[in-house]
Amino acid sequence: MEQLILEQGKKAKEAARDLASLSSEVKDRVLMAMAELLIKRQDSILRANQEDLREAREKGLAASLLDRLLLTEDRIEAMAEGLREIAFLPDPVGEISEISTRPNGLRVGKMRSPLGVVGIIYEARPNVTVDATGLCLKAGNSVLLRGGSEAIRSNQALVQVLKEALIERGLSENSVQLIQSTDRDAVVIMAKMDQYLDVIIPRGGRQLIKRVTEAATVPVIQTGVGNCHIYLDEKADLEKAVPIIKNAKCQRPGVCNALETLLVHQSIGEVILPQIGEALTEGGVLLKGCPKTQKFIPNAELATEEDWATEYLDLTLAIKVVDSYREALDHIHQFSTGHSEAIITEDYSKALDFLKQVDSATVYVNASTRFTDGNQFGLGAEVGISTQKLHVRGPMGVKDLTTQKYVIFGNGQIRS
Amino acid sequence: MEQLILEQGKKAKEAARDLASLSSEVKDRVLMAMAELLIKRQDSILRANQEDLREAREKGLAASLLDRLLLTEDRIEAMAEGLREIAFLPDPVGEISEISTRPNGLRVGKMRSPLGVVGIIYEARPNVTVDATGLCLKAGNSVLLRGGSEAIRSNQALVQVLKEALIERGLSENSVQLIQSTDRDAVVIMAKMDQYLDVIIPRGGRQLIKRVTEAATVPVIQTGVGNCHIYLDEKADLEKAVPIIKNAKCQRPGVCNALETLLVHQSIGEVILPQIGEALTEGGVLLKGCPKTQKFIPNAELATEEDWATEYLDLTLAIKVVDSYREALDHIHQFSTGHSEAIITEDYSKALDFLKQVDSATVYVNASTRFTDGNQFGLGAEVGISTQKLHVRGPMGVKDLTTQKYVIFGNGQIRS
Repeated sequence: MEQLILEQGKKAKEAARDLASLSSEVKDRVLMAMAELLIKRQDSILRANQEDLREAREKGLAASLLDRLLLTEDRIEAMAEGLREIAFLPDPVGEISEISTRPNGLRVGKMRSPLGVVGIIYEARPNVTVDATGLCLKAGNSVLLRGGSEAIRSNQALVQVLKEALIERGLSENSVQLIQSTDRDAVVIMAKMDQYLDVIIPRGGRQLIKRVTEAATVPVIQTGVGNCHIYLDEKADLEKAVPIIKNAKCQRPGVCNALETLLVHQSIGEVILPQIGEALTEGGVLLKGCPKTQKFIPNAELATEEDWATEYLDLTLAIKVVDSYREALDHIHQFSTGHSEAIITEDYSKALDFLKQVDSATVYVNASTRFTDGNQFGLGAEVGISTQKLHVRGPMGVKDLTTQKYVIFGNGQIRS
Repeated sequence: MEQLILEQGKKAKEAARDLASLSSEVKDRVLMAMAELLIKRQDSILRANQEDLREAREKGLAASLLDRLLLTEDRIEAMAEGLREIAFLPDPVGEISEISTRPNGLRVGKMRSPLGVVGIIYEARPNVTVDATGLCLKAGNSVLLRGGSEAIRSNQALVQVLKEALIERGLSENSVQLIQSTDRDAVVIMAKMDQYLDVIIPRGGRQLIKRVTEAATVPVIQTGVGNCHIYLDEKADLEKAVPIIKNAKCQRPGVCNALETLLVHQSIGEVILPQIGEALTEGGVLLKGCPKTQKFIPNAELATEEDWATEYLDLTLAIKVVDSYREALDHIHQFSTGHSEAIITEDYSKALDFLKQVDSATVYVNASTRFTDGNQFGLGAEVGISTQKLHVRGPMGVKDLTTQKYVIFGNGQIRS
């Protein structure tokens, strides 16, 4: 297995060299060709997906996971549309910026260029196979994919179609490769392949990310884990507060940008907590609260220390009444995973201070945390949401899959 | 030992939170205070340095390493001047950019903020202690330093002075900390301290970088190893070529941006190689060449495959005659460490093509590779030269020790 994966890494590196110097037009045409072929070949893709689903059902996979795995004609059309949208995004590669002239006449600037080879490790979501490939290609990178084992046949069928489009347009089929082994060790082999991979992006739960990070010699971009907070300030506009909180918790509770802990300033607890309790209970949310919260929301269970650190990914919300803005900041500093946090306030200075003080990938004033998403931010699709500080933070689009090198225009300068 | 280092990490993280929200003025004043105190306390620094030097001499340290370790009044003044220069650089923290308004009225932008806690591992060069601290503080980061064991007393004396300046200005002395253990395991403990460190930067040889990268769960910025190439194109201006090549090889051969392999287009070998041979031999350079090179430089030794992959860091140069521009690109692609490469040519299209094709942190046209340096590029001092693609490439200044978070200005938006 190791030999096979290393061989794929080598081919990916070779393919990346050619991809790096393609024109935007060539890249966009292959993305459009991929979209077209996905539709044309949908029968074979759906057949493969049916087999995956049958096996997953036999294994007793949860309904929510089966839904993620499921492909339909509509979902294939959505993947194709995603590729077309990526084709229409601006191409960041080759942009030269920040040119300054040094006293000796050297012109020093930066040129945006592809990362090279991107490794992506993800769960049984076949749409990631297509989205990630589209984003990587647009940025001039080759991509080595390792999807969840339950989706192996779907991924094989999809990657075959993507390769067919590459060949049709005269490009190397090694621009996109799928790791065939569903063995967990394959992940570790990928993570150590620093001679071929420039970055590895694990998309998934805490355990997967931890395993990749510990094994990796390839630079890792950590993604996803989101213990997100909203702080309801004493100067909050209560008309905005309830809809934002309900949206952040209920609109799609299973995702990383959903609200997990609500912090409420003590001075407004009495007024707002009963309303919040009612709205969320109506939305089917199980509430856990500190003793002060329980005073105003009697049906809230008592929250423990563990609750403050929990990413429920479910219709559960922890609520804490804080004595001050400072206590809210301290709580967020202690328990946040650096994903998304929001303040609800009409206090101008506190709003700006919150944006500065909170050390998370995305910090909001008066909006739902559910907006942390590449499409919502105008990046097009995203390859994941970075929760680390190196390279980029938050949703990663095409530009975030590139880097900048220094380019220096001289006319004979030597150093004295 | 581990307990002590973890304790330092925790303190560093606490200090980082306060540093992140300091005004530029407060940071600049502490940098100026540090500069002043370095001069005032130079006697104690020089005494500590003398002890380090005495022990290093007893151990038989090489003259070049002793020179790196040596502090003098002039060198202390140079360190102080470095801090003053950093104080006068613009403060990147807090800058908000790229604000766009989404169709729902959300304003999405990016705010530059500190990385947090920066770990730096370096060799016995006491000036790095001061430079790195200055750059980290300016960017709002706390710093955990691990210097070479031979410089331990010098570093202790320097850090004591830096802490004194911090206290004098009312800031936490934990903003700068030195790992006291000179045990090699201390490096591994640091590299795994991801609960406290946001990034670790190993500055040193291949072995150190490899050891840190393999152990690390903290994101690493790899630095320094430079197998640098110059390609002498058939359209080169030979008047520029010889001075550039001599400068890149001889001006300071022991550093990472010095030239290691020269590639010469076959059509100009007969004209230029004898001149180059003469100029470099005169400069004391040992030449190693391919058989075609030996035809025109008879005193060149025969180069082996290993030579192409060697970073000599010495007065030795490998020379290869290539049949074509493409062969030069292939050679660089195969052997470069991604640090600095240059083309010497008057051919406009080839110059631009080289800048695009060569995948290194810094790519030059018609200039010496010796310019790859923070000061030379106008960044002020540098904390190292990144040779990886994640985060930043090339010399890293103050701005490169920051990151960008998304800041979102809403007025009640919820996701539908």
